[in-house]
Amino acid sequence: MEIAQSLQQVKSSYIREILAAASDKNVISLAGGLPDEKTFPIDLMKPTLENLANMPEVFQYGSTAGYTPLLDFLNDYFQLPETHTAMITTGSQQGLDLIARAYVNPGDKVVMEAPSYLGAMQVFGLVQANIVTVSQTEFGPNLDELEQCFETEKPKMFYAVPDFHNPTGVCWSLETRQKVAELCIQYNVAFIEDAPYRELRFSGEALPLVSDFCPQNSILLRSFSKIASPGLRIGVVTGKTSYLEPLIKIKQGADLHSSVPMQALLHGLLKHDNFETHINTICELYKSRYDVMYAELEQRLPKSCVLKPVNGGMFVWVEIPECDTFELAKTLLTNGVAVVPSPVFYPEGSEVKAALRLNFTNATPDELRVAVKRLADVLHML
Amino acid sequence: MEIAQSLQQVKSSYIREILAAASDKNVISLAGGLPDEKTFPIDLMKPTLENLANMPEVFQYGSTAGYTPLLDFLNDYFQLPETHTAMITTGSQQGLDLIARAYVNPGDKVVMEAPSYLGAMQVFGLVQANIVTVSQTEFGPNLDELEQCFETEKPKMFYAVPDFHNPTGVCWSLETRQKVAELCIQYNVAFIEDAPYRELRFSGEALPLVSDFCPQNSILLRSFSKIASPGLRIGVVTGKTSYLEPLIKIKQGADLHSSVPMQALLHGLLKHDNFETHINTICELYKSRYDVMYAELEQRLPKSCVLKPVNGGMFVWVEIPECDTFELAKTLLTNGVAVVPSPVFYPEGSEVKAALRLNFTNATPDELRVAVKRLADVLHML
Repeated sequence: MEIAQSLQQVKSSYIREILAAASDKNVISLAGGLPDEKTFPIDLMKPTLENLANMPEVFQYGSTAGYTPLLDFLNDYFQLPETHTAMITTGSQQGLDLIARAYVNPGDKVVMEAPSYLGAMQVFGLVQANIVTVSQTEFGPNLDELEQCFETEKPKMFYAVPDFHNPTGVCWSLETRQKVAELCIQYNVAFIEDAPYRELRFSGEALPLVSDFCPQNSILLRSFSKIASPGLRIGVVTGKTSYLEPLIKIKQGADLHSSVPMQALLHGLLKHDNFETHINTICELYKSRYDVMYAELEQRLPKSCVLKPVNGGMFVWVEIPECDTFELAKTLLTNGVAVVPSPVFYPEGSEVKAALRLNFTNATPDELRVAVKRLADVLHML
Repeated sequence: MEIAQSLQQVKSSYIREILAAASDKNVISLAGGLPDEKTFPIDLMKPTLENLANMPEVFQYGSTAGYTPLLDFLNDYFQLPETHTAMITTGSQQGLDLIARAYVNPGDKVVMEAPSYLGAMQVFGLVQANIVTVSQTEFGPNLDELEQCFETEKPKMFYAVPDFHNPTGVCWSLETRQKVAELCIQYNVAFIEDAPYRELRFSGEALPLVSDFCPQNSILLRSFSKIASPGLRIGVVTGKTSYLEPLIKIKQGADLHSSVPMQALLHGLLKHDNFETHINTICELYKSRYDVMYAELEQRLPKSCVLKPVNGGMFVWVEIPECDTFELAKTLLTNGVAVVPSPVFYPEGSEVKAALRLNFTNATPDELRVAVKRLADVLHML
């Protein structure tokens, strides 16, 4: 049976392939975007886990928009305005897929920063969007390029990860957030704000969401995979009700609704008194790992590499001299360290800067030291 | 933001709307397709539920195809041939959506019986398939029509529910199964076999799957929503490996993977010694309810209605004199009984026979008696 044309251009996720290769015990993986298993708040989930057997209603079909007690809680937790609604998705990845399917016709223009999140390129690729990129500075997207792009390309939406960007770790400045929101309003471009790393801030002050500056022009995707557990596959999308209704319609066909016991479990966790403390603990742990990795990188990397500090998230982005980064990643694998080379984060046909994405959340300080040494040793031979 | 063209033709699920209306305490609902909450095997799930807190690995990201212990178990449980693979989906509804997205281009022809499952029409509608229908007899699809359709229309796939069809309850005969498989092979049409009700047989002998007669030309969707719990949202798709690989590629973008704790829970349940007994208990319960409903219908319905017995599943299909069935359903609602009128089970533009789908699994015998009386009283006034 021949596959659909829309699928013929989609490559399988290189990251998932490298993750498989990286499962070798001799390889230290900096490739994935996995939270440390030890951070999962199982103790805080335990009371709800044990109580699920007393909640037969969660084993029945649920409503497409989500489990009412969780939705009510989130409405309050996020202080949604009257015009806005929350809907539960099977991970925030599904939220992204629903947005692409509900709004994008083949050929419609979607703006992203380059580099950008691979999973977003996949879903927009599947609906045959025309992905247009703007470059990224240390403060966020290049604003002149963005305005010109909005003006000349007339895109339908702008997808971005303003907090601790995947893959670069960049956190947009306050001024950039305000200006992007203004431009989205001015040019009538929907802003799709993906915020999976937002809570993983370990230094500096939290900044408002971009969506806070353009609430009528944006859809916000939140994840609990980094602060609770990715295995549950529960995310939440918020935005004005008229924006969310088409997503609910698609979700009916996509999976009817997300797992209700998992929604009840997340609800129990979020309302637990110690959940805030738990997030602080994760941030402290990841900061200590980041500090180790960053110090090692600063000390060991060749001077030809460019390294920028981050204030949170899961990744450090290292710009390296131009080379075949896929070959380099393979050499690194045989030398016992897995990383992700930059081309996978660029849409096909765009200009790629040689770089590597390094994850610091899922290895111990000792592993991070060894991994950075292995990485630097190979880079010194470039 | 304007919605995508593919969504503009999709109606919201009337069933989900009627389910909302049917939540009124004075209405007895025969409208849904819900299993009885009391049948959920919570006791059999309890040991796994309590043990999840000791399985931190299930809270981490999982692999797209599914949780390995569950996949290994299912391989064995279904005795899959070497050429075949299983993959886990977020409910079997997702399996259907993945098949549509992976294989159907706009305008590709997909054959279904008329009437047919609404959720299938939704997903094939979203990918802008050209849905071609054949009529259904008491033995399954009209085989002459089917062969002619295969010959002249050259469809890509044939989607069907051979065991206790939704909405009609028809169970395909052995001869029909063999002949359909032959035709699929002869005309190179993929057979998409949806089997959510297969285990809910309460009389007669189990028949082979249609896929058993054309294993290289079919994809099989299985559900645990009727025999375990729909809330979990775990289904399984099996078929030859080359057919399943594109589905896994789409699932990466759709939700990365299905909830791992829910997969572990299902695994614990399926391997429980008492699971087979549990299925028998459900079938006996549903038979007793079916018997009550059928006897009441036979006794009370006007002679102008046509009623056919079923050997399992969740539905009885009552053909009624031609009328505005939507208006009738509304009248029935105000008279305290919710049913689903036949037009929602037909693709737009096809010829509709007036009928009502009645569910017998989620009401008590007393409620069924009252509901049938209310139904018959209104039908006598037609």
